[in-house]
Amino acid sequence: MVSKAQIKHIRSLALGKFRRQHQQFVAEGHKIVEEMLLTGGFKYQLYISESQTENLSSVIKSASYEVISEKVMKQISQLTTPPGVLAVVDFTTHNYELDDLKSEISLILDGIRDPGNLGSIIRSAEWFGIQNIFISADTVDPYHPKVVQATMGSLFRVRLMEADLITLINDAQTNGFQVFAAVMDGKSVYKTKLTTKASFLVIGSESHGINKKLRTLIKNPISIPSYARGSLKTESLNASVAAAVLLAEFRKYGD
Amino acid sequence: MVSKAQIKHIRSLALGKFRRQHQQFVAEGHKIVEEMLLTGGFKYQLYISESQTENLSSVIKSASYEVISEKVMKQISQLTTPPGVLAVVDFTTHNYELDDLKSEISLILDGIRDPGNLGSIIRSAEWFGIQNIFISADTVDPYHPKVVQATMGSLFRVRLMEADLITLINDAQTNGFQVFAAVMDGKSVYKTKLTTKASFLVIGSESHGINKKLRTLIKNPISIPSYARGSLKTESLNASVAAAVLLAEFRKYGD
Repeated sequence: MVSKAQIKHIRSLALGKFRRQHQQFVAEGHKIVEEMLLTGGFKYQLYISESQTENLSSVIKSASYEVISEKVMKQISQLTTPPGVLAVVDFTTHNYELDDLKSEISLILDGIRDPGNLGSIIRSAEWFGIQNIFISADTVDPYHPKVVQATMGSLFRVRLMEADLITLINDAQTNGFQVFAAVMDGKSVYKTKLTTKASFLVIGSESHGINKKLRTLIKNPISIPSYARGSLKTESLNASVAAAVLLAEFRKYGD
Repeated sequence: MVSKAQIKHIRSLALGKFRRQHQQFVAEGHKIVEEMLLTGGFKYQLYISESQTENLSSVIKSASYEVISEKVMKQISQLTTPPGVLAVVDFTTHNYELDDLKSEISLILDGIRDPGNLGSIIRSAEWFGIQNIFISADTVDPYHPKVVQATMGSLFRVRLMEADLITLINDAQTNGFQVFAAVMDGKSVYKTKLTTKASFLVIGSESHGINKKLRTLIKNPISIPSYARGSLKTESLNASVAAAVLLAEFRKYGD
């Protein structure tokens, strides 16, 4: 039985303000919830609508869940067509020490605003073996339902941390880390010595790029050359596309 | 003066059915309309709301346009917050001959459904010097407002053509073209001899990949290797991300 108070609570998680207050978010759909369960280590409550009890994968079936009516599912779901599988998941808090990042490349996101872009970046990050993702306070909430959806489960397997980026980048460069940043007027990524050890890649916002204060700090601004024909051309790539093209290049051709 | 019939006509273009019937679409916003004008060669009617007449770039200012009230703009706009610059643009029809494609790499899109993905692919395609993009009949309408927006103007500078992909790919391979396709279980793109001459790259749908019939035809299935750690990982990259990572690789490392 889901109480009225619980329904109200779960519904409130549609808003970032209440997600932060309660340190919880909602993950919906067979696939996403299965990924959460398979990854493990999460504190969650799982709700299954009556019509879906026969459609559950073995992973979901063996989890602990509560069966609820279609009506209640409709009330707590954030989707127009509820998939009938909904988990309320507690936030996981991560910390970092620069020393622990010395053998790898990490990602820094400065002001990404589009949930689809952030989700896609998290998905690509996992694909290219990134474990740690640092986000600025003005980046879209990574627990926004559209972000959760777009990560296709990767959200559960990367370490997301909000950070003061100026402090982080200053500390990193002082401690011998290479900080690369995707900018419009940087050195060609193909002419830059790339490294996937003790390094960071910074991706800026869709409309404004990287914050000016950060930009002046960063020692390795890089760009993806355009092969567009003619004098007219698009000014930039989509942020999530640029992130993936660069990560692929670091992974394959970096030392 | 915009007549009631014109308002009704422009509003109808929010739907694909009417876009196809009238062979017209709507492009909104200073940036997109400026790109359309700069590219040139389009037949269009341009509407500017009263409040925007002082904010026009020199390019838009020197075009022919009609000033309309905020009220009428709100009626014809497809956006919640109308930017006040709206163009009704006639479709441009392109044809192709395989022979004309021999010196380049072209893109084939099979069933891309998400407007944001299609827009991003068109934007990346221009960036990486692709001129010709072939789309299957079940690909999302490239004149869908969200696609137009996401292309950031690239839509006006690539040649989009709907095609029967089986015929196209058969013809291409018979005539010595190399057809590459992004699949989950292909040969690593890093171990494949890539060429940007007389070649095609096929990108499949977000959820189903490439249509089975096409898949069996295609002689060069390729994949982007994953560097994900651990046994659990995301199964694939976002379609627009995969397209861009592969195009970058073709452009830089192909012959």
